[in-house]
Amino acid sequence: MSIITLITDFGLEDTYVGIMKGVILNINPHVQIVDLTHKIRPQSIKQASFLLKTAYSFFPKGTIHVAVVDPGVGSERRPLLVKTPSYFFIAPDNGVLELIYQTEPVEVFHLNNPKYFLPKISFTFHGRDVFAPIAGYLSLGKRCEEMGKKIYDFQRLEWPLPKVKDYVLKGEVIYIDHFGNLISNISRQKFQEFVKNYGFSIKIKNVVLKTIASHYLAVPPKEILAIWGSSEHLEIAQSMGSAKETLKANIGEKIEIKKEAK
Amino acid sequence: MSIITLITDFGLEDTYVGIMKGVILNINPHVQIVDLTHKIRPQSIKQASFLLKTAYSFFPKGTIHVAVVDPGVGSERRPLLVKTPSYFFIAPDNGVLELIYQTEPVEVFHLNNPKYFLPKISFTFHGRDVFAPIAGYLSLGKRCEEMGKKIYDFQRLEWPLPKVKDYVLKGEVIYIDHFGNLISNISRQKFQEFVKNYGFSIKIKNVVLKTIASHYLAVPPKEILAIWGSSEHLEIAQSMGSAKETLKANIGEKIEIKKEAK
Amino acid sequence: MSIITLITDFGLEDTYVGIMKGVILNINPHVQIVDLTHKIRPQSIKQASFLLKTAYSFFPKGTIHVAVVDPGVGSERRPLLVKTPSYFFIAPDNGVLELIYQTEPVEVFHLNNPKYFLPKISFTFHGRDVFAPIAGYLSLGKRCEEMGKKIYDFQRLEWPLPKVKDYVLKGEVIYIDHFGNLISNISRQKFQEFVKNYGFSIKIKNVVLKTIASHYLAVPPKEILAIWGSSEHLEIAQSMGSAKETLKANIGEKIEIKKEAK
Repeated sequence: MSIITLITDFGLEDTYVGIMKGVILNINPHVQIVDLTHKIRPQSIKQASFLLKTAYSFFPKGTIHVAVVDPGVGSERRPLLVKTPSYFFIAPDNGVLELIYQTEPVEVFHLNNPKYFLPKISFTFHGRDVFAPIAGYLSLGKRCEEMGKKIYDFQRLEWPLPKVKDYVLKGEVIYIDHFGNLISNISRQKFQEFVKNYGFSIKIKNVVLKTIASHYLAVPPKEILAIWGSSEHLEIAQSMGSAKETLKANIGEKIEIKKEAK
Repeated sequence: MSIITLITDFGLEDTYVGIMKGVILNINPHVQIVDLTHKIRPQSIKQASFLLKTAYSFFPKGTIHVAVVDPGVGSERRPLLVKTPSYFFIAPDNGVLELIYQTEPVEVFHLNNPKYFLPKISFTFHGRDVFAPIAGYLSLGKRCEEMGKKIYDFQRLEWPLPKVKDYVLKGEVIYIDHFGNLISNISRQKFQEFVKNYGFSIKIKNVVLKTIASHYLAVPPKEILAIWGSSEHLEIAQSMGSAKETLKANIGEKIEIKKEAK
Repeated sequence: MSIITLITDFGLEDTYVGIMKGVILNINPHVQIVDLTHKIRPQSIKQASFLLKTAYSFFPKGTIHVAVVDPGVGSERRPLLVKTPSYFFIAPDNGVLELIYQTEPVEVFHLNNPKYFLPKISFTFHGRDVFAPIAGYLSLGKRCEEMGKKIYDFQRLEWPLPKVKDYVLKGEVIYIDHFGNLISNISRQKFQEFVKNYGFSIKIKNVVLKTIASHYLAVPPKEILAIWGSSEHLEIAQSMGSAKETLKANIGEKIEIKKEAK
């Protein structure tokens, strides 16, 4: 059974997501559709790119991931189909697939064959008119080459990477989850390459942490802690609380790592 | 594979929607269930009617649409099954299907055969006790005539239609979506019948627009624009923003179209 | 077709729920996954226990219910698989299954066979690494005994029960739903055992009610009423309104029943 996932900024108040599912099921009623999330902040391409990255690889080989955060709908921006060794991605050409481009070898197709769109294309809802039908036909086994033309000049996104400057590893908060956990752009690998066998201190706002907790309840309730989050990034959390609220931190908040004597 | 869609005002905090799905799957475990939305404002029959209209026709022929916005649950209001050439609709007899009645030829059945309800009927949750089991049995191929009795006096809803008065086409905002787009009751067809080959002005609050944008980014960021929305209604939007917040507009807000020299 | 339900406090903003579904489908792509709710208040084990109780028995025999409200993730708390005559439950050993223990005969297994977990176990997301894969393998027919070891010392939860004192039946609000209905811990059975053939008064805050309404619209709009809710508990509601907002009531609010002359 084919699987299609959806990640959008459509929210759950309207029927936009339901309509996309109707279009897909009209083409292939046997597909299984899974919501990744529809609560991307409106037009936040970066947030969608990050969340898609956290999730895509847990799905079965062959899964089709559809990402619709599309402020440029109806303009000249191209609709894309991206093929990796194990998955397909369908999205507008606005950088929402940036972290896939950074992680996987990709073949990128500009979807230019209207035979696989709805007969009438609006200027406001390509999730329904273009991306959903493409996902439906792809799940039936249509080949990428039939649906689009291979391109190489797809849109990339500037992505904030941690940097070492004056012996300090400088990163930032790139995502805040439902629990108020602050997820940074510092991966476990990057951290270990920098810290090696030294001790370390982690600074965010005016909190300094000298250890990384093994789990959320490893520190007393309400204490701030650093932890390796589920996506293997350094995360600042609060035991039985919300680090976001307690620290009044936002996306972009600086996190600094220093080496210390052990 | 049969498809059942659900549109309700149950929200997503409780298990009411999950329970309905359990009841359906208990009768037919092979059905595919799709959420249209569960975030209808509590008891807002009009909002549900509008949203169901935007979505139902994108689903495969034979799809069963279940609409439960039901302030009169447990009273004498009748449960209905409505058959159109391509779809089935299951809902309380309170006007929530008004826009289906306006759009499709319908056969309406009063569901009066308790054989197809749950054995014990509560006075507070017919979504679970009546509408879900009916949807389940219908997806197994039960005939409408077995489940209910044909009626003609089903409840209609007064629906605000645009009117021409003193050479002005007067409409109003009937829905505001997640992006803050203001969707009016003026269809593209109605607009064109009125404006013909003249120029025009569109007035909402103290904003006057003289053109209809082709897509959201056709105007500079933060500018207010008029556009044909995905349901072919005149929509007032803001490029990279929320027209609802910027204009402080609500449902019922007046929109006036005047003919102008070209 | 196997059915797996999910109830969590993960919310819908992140991809945590989507990731769990990916893991399940990677093991068994033919399973049907149903969301009970993901909007449990963060770490509210009691709320999850109550909501799971309202829903589980409406699903087909053999359904696998997965409950992940897990503040102790990564600590020594055990992952459990619970078998009842008709269902399976997968959850952390923190009392979230309390109302199942009170309602059903159970066999409880400590999941200690890492063969059925993901290869790499994080300290922050056992929904993905432990509970989802167990659900997947169970849906393929793996036996409980292969996956864990039978235990008897599983964690129980103190649950507020109504009490009779000085001829008054004293209960409290244990759940407030999306409509603002106040659901008490007084079951219809408990109420009838206490009141017998007498009259009665129901007191909450400074409202006293002498009757139980048959349905929400049985009283004039905006009036407060008592009613038997869909889970057969005494519920305080407002006709066409929110009792929670009008009475400014919270979870834990006292409800007192007195016998009165008829």
